[in-house]
Amino acid sequence: MDDCIFCRIVAGELPSIRIHEDERSIVIMDINPATRGHALVIPRAHARDIQAISDEDLAHCALVSRDIADRALAALGADGVTIMQSNGAAAWQTVFHYHVHVIPRYDGDPLVLPWRPAPGDLAEIQDISSAYFQD
Amino acid sequence: MDDCIFCRIVAGELPSIRIHEDERSIVIMDINPATRGHALVIPRAHARDIQAISDEDLAHCALVSRDIADRALAALGADGVTIMQSNGAAAWQTVFHYHVHVIPRYDGDPLVLPWRPAPGDLAEIQDISSAYFQD
Repeated sequence: MDDCIFCRIVAGELPSIRIHEDERSIVIMDINPATRGHALVIPRAHARDIQAISDEDLAHCALVSRDIADRALAALGADGVTIMQSNGAAAWQTVFHYHVHVIPRYDGDPLVLPWRPAPGDLAEIQDISSAYFQD
Repeated sequence: MDDCIFCRIVAGELPSIRIHEDERSIVIMDINPATRGHALVIPRAHARDIQAISDEDLAHCALVSRDIADRALAALGADGVTIMQSNGAAAWQTVFHYHVHVIPRYDGDPLVLPWRPAPGDLAEIQDISSAYFQD
């Protein structure tokens, strides 16, 4: 898509710092990094989000994310890795071409868990679970 | 593994609210939900994290996560979906059996982005990118 920044990066029309590429995907450094080594796995084929991406590209991006996570642990000295993928503006998606954040984590880094863990109401959770697959 | 809470849930030895199951995975409701409909995709086979999981289970969990995300949008009225997967205590992992958080998102929900987006130093990012695949 002409107006998609990630399509233009895939095509080489916009600069990026690329650390991996294969037939289906590229991996670039996030230039607004959450931590040292924050990378983005991007399918070459345009797909807006997890709803639109093909099964093959979805599975492939998962495997490539694992490879990048492995390298973050082995080569960057990360203590852990957060994998995050956002769908929709309500979920913080800002570039509407599917991408996976691979975020190396370090003991004591400044990231915060997005929510405050607290027990839910079990009856309510049971009701929601019934709603998931009823049509 | 006898002492793994998710292995015991998979085996039915501990209760859970299950919304999907197949040969490779189960999906349960998170009882400490970040939002309405927060679910966990869990492979049946024990694997500590993304480093330990098989390619097949990793790809399968990605596809199942998409199915759950689809249902959150279609049946729960979610406005978006955040997919998150934690590896290592440094990355907020608390149960050491691989699992994917599927978190339905709603406009104006209280979740916060884990980091504060800000431009990085490009020369430094370039250096880190070189470190990723050098051995």
